[in-house]
Amino acid sequence: MPDPNILARRLRALGSSPLFYAEPLTLVRGDGVYLYGDDGRRYLDCYNNIPCVGHCNQRVVDAIARQASTLNVHSRYVSDIVVNYAERLLGSFDTKFDQVMFTCSGSEANDQALRIARLLAPGRGIICTNFAYHGNTAAVDEISPLFHHAPQHFAEVRTITYPEMYRPLRGLSGEVLNQAYLNEMQAAIDSFDEAGIGFAGFIFCSVFANEGLPAIPPGLLAAASALVRRAGGFVISDEVQAGFGRTGKMWGHQLMGFTPDIVTMGKPMGNGYPVAALVSRADILDAYRAKVFYFNTFAGAQVAVAAAGAVLDEIEDRGLMDNARRVGDYIRAGFARLAKRFELIGDIRGAGLWIGVEMVRDRQTRAPAPDEALRLVNLLKDAGCLTGRIGEHDNVLKIRPPLVCGIEHADELLGAVESSLEKLQASP
Amino acid sequence: MPDPNILARRLRALGSSPLFYAEPLTLVRGDGVYLYGDDGRRYLDCYNNIPCVGHCNQRVVDAIARQASTLNVHSRYVSDIVVNYAERLLGSFDTKFDQVMFTCSGSEANDQALRIARLLAPGRGIICTNFAYHGNTAAVDEISPLFHHAPQHFAEVRTITYPEMYRPLRGLSGEVLNQAYLNEMQAAIDSFDEAGIGFAGFIFCSVFANEGLPAIPPGLLAAASALVRRAGGFVISDEVQAGFGRTGKMWGHQLMGFTPDIVTMGKPMGNGYPVAALVSRADILDAYRAKVFYFNTFAGAQVAVAAAGAVLDEIEDRGLMDNARRVGDYIRAGFARLAKRFELIGDIRGAGLWIGVEMVRDRQTRAPAPDEALRLVNLLKDAGCLTGRIGEHDNVLKIRPPLVCGIEHADELLGAVESSLEKLQASP
Repeated sequence: MPDPNILARRLRALGSSPLFYAEPLTLVRGDGVYLYGDDGRRYLDCYNNIPCVGHCNQRVVDAIARQASTLNVHSRYVSDIVVNYAERLLGSFDTKFDQVMFTCSGSEANDQALRIARLLAPGRGIICTNFAYHGNTAAVDEISPLFHHAPQHFAEVRTITYPEMYRPLRGLSGEVLNQAYLNEMQAAIDSFDEAGIGFAGFIFCSVFANEGLPAIPPGLLAAASALVRRAGGFVISDEVQAGFGRTGKMWGHQLMGFTPDIVTMGKPMGNGYPVAALVSRADILDAYRAKVFYFNTFAGAQVAVAAAGAVLDEIEDRGLMDNARRVGDYIRAGFARLAKRFELIGDIRGAGLWIGVEMVRDRQTRAPAPDEALRLVNLLKDAGCLTGRIGEHDNVLKIRPPLVCGIEHADELLGAVESSLEKLQASP
Repeated sequence: MPDPNILARRLRALGSSPLFYAEPLTLVRGDGVYLYGDDGRRYLDCYNNIPCVGHCNQRVVDAIARQASTLNVHSRYVSDIVVNYAERLLGSFDTKFDQVMFTCSGSEANDQALRIARLLAPGRGIICTNFAYHGNTAAVDEISPLFHHAPQHFAEVRTITYPEMYRPLRGLSGEVLNQAYLNEMQAAIDSFDEAGIGFAGFIFCSVFANEGLPAIPPGLLAAASALVRRAGGFVISDEVQAGFGRTGKMWGHQLMGFTPDIVTMGKPMGNGYPVAALVSRADILDAYRAKVFYFNTFAGAQVAVAAAGAVLDEIEDRGLMDNARRVGDYIRAGFARLAKRFELIGDIRGAGLWIGVEMVRDRQTRAPAPDEALRLVNLLKDAGCLTGRIGEHDNVLKIRPPLVCGIEHADELLGAVESSLEKLQASP
């Protein structure tokens, strides 16, 4: 029996902890790509990237239950299954990464990445983009302007304009556009040097997820990485959202064509079991550990790696990266067809099962349509599809279903989008 | 089959991630108060406080497996079982705490506590003790001098001498001793004011666990809390180690006689499932949330609170707080008997199943015996008992078994201690 006072009780016990939707959704069950509300309704989950191998995936549940019945202790005892997983994880990179450092959350992984960069680089200055979000610790919040109510200044952080091609900086294009972005980065590095702070590195989501999944000017990220390294900084690829096959590649930086020094990961790693990590080269992590005693109680315990191992099994055995590419392309093609009928669709972006659809009031001016995007998200929820909104202008429809999403689910989504856009067009 | 190369492989994949014991222990199974090595040996776990209701506790495992098969999503959807747990947790405090903020780890909880204090108090200066450890984020590391290889200076942190009665400050006692500790605190607050930093609060483990579980001068913590509040700061009780019945009371501050503004918790909360939290008053957390958009993906998801709820069930239904008091007192009484034979035992401290035994070379001078304590820990391991060492002088035997530890296990421990001390005495 749903409790009619649940929202009031939640507000009392959890405060104004954020909620989705004008009318928040109370969930009671999950299964594969579906979530079930306390209203008895079924929702196609096109939002949640954490349950990457499906809500309540049986293989992951079994792995957790089995390992939780066997052993779960911290990392100051030796455990072969933890070492096995670490080796397997390292094997998923093209780049020569040697070591894993486990954490409990993506926030903790990014926090460690900042500590590493600031301890080993010439200075302490970190560059992030102006719409980044990297987590919730005190240090990581400083590089998360997306969640700030108003612009804030932090001595050891500079923000630069996130790169994109739909509304490029000053309307530039080609090599001139790249140079304009690189000039901003160089100016940030110079300003750290002038302030006596020095430079430590550049952290960014490899696919610029919170920035709205923009198309990135070709060659820019490789050039930016080279610039960062010339200045003695670390290139930190935040793969908390992009990692584990989401884009059709295992890691976002493989898709985006740059080589990081440090990679952080989290969310989908354990399909909802709290486990996250940072990987890097031995020279970096050995130097860090020589200076810092790092220990993390829960991180990389046996149940965490059992869950994480089952996720890798599912990604491999069920060909989920292929599936992400195939179904993601199918969804983008579906939106391209819908774009012929609906002027609101301004741009269709992304890779694999990470899809961004930018809504505009006018295709010529590219004027953002945030209100329409919000209405669309709520209409889609009423139609039984969970999506979200992202981007600088809050006008990018965010589609990010579990990787087990099939063509039949894509059709269900596209049907719901079509009928919702019709409603939106009928009463603009 | 144990892998003879497991240590080398671990070093390669995980770097110099810290390990216990001269000869590290490879574990393969846990059950109640016992852990099993890959050597086929059984070890009585007198060290690990996380599996508070026993390794692989069936009720917790079942709760995790059941909930993981049903629903596990983040907190931006409403979920009655999360609200139910939050209400139950708040009901465990005497103090009027209204709200829970979930995190993934104790480090994250302490990091949030610092953010709250620094945002809402007049200044940003935080006081901690000179042998504190509060976790591993960048901000929390600054208040964790225990883990620093050398003393470090952080502009917004001051350390004060941890309080104790075995080696009291300048040999003082009574009200004069209390005043000496309070003077240090006032000087730290003044120095923040003089530096233009201002004061934000005092964070400490409610039982000063890493400081060696010292006996605290009566009345000091209440007086210190009053001083902190008069200066506009927050009293933050880190209950990550002391909480959930460890001391025979649900919370360390209940035992120690002070009233915190913010309480952080973690380790035993989910018996090994990564879940942690911060509780405080609504006026504090509402003011914080008005300024900061705080969201934590994994925190307080359904499986986490299912595990945490099963832990509370076990603590209540099996009377584990009573058990902690009874068995803890029995162990301390056993050490008191052994102290008549073994001069090495200098002081026996703690509450409930948190026991500290300070080893000294000379009871008159109280000269610390760190080498003997280390040998004792390794002899105890050889005898099948896992313990550790803590304290400023690395000479305090740290005994902290799961709360399901019974009298028969206490006898097993005391027998192993006796035979190990005999060996130590035979070849000093």
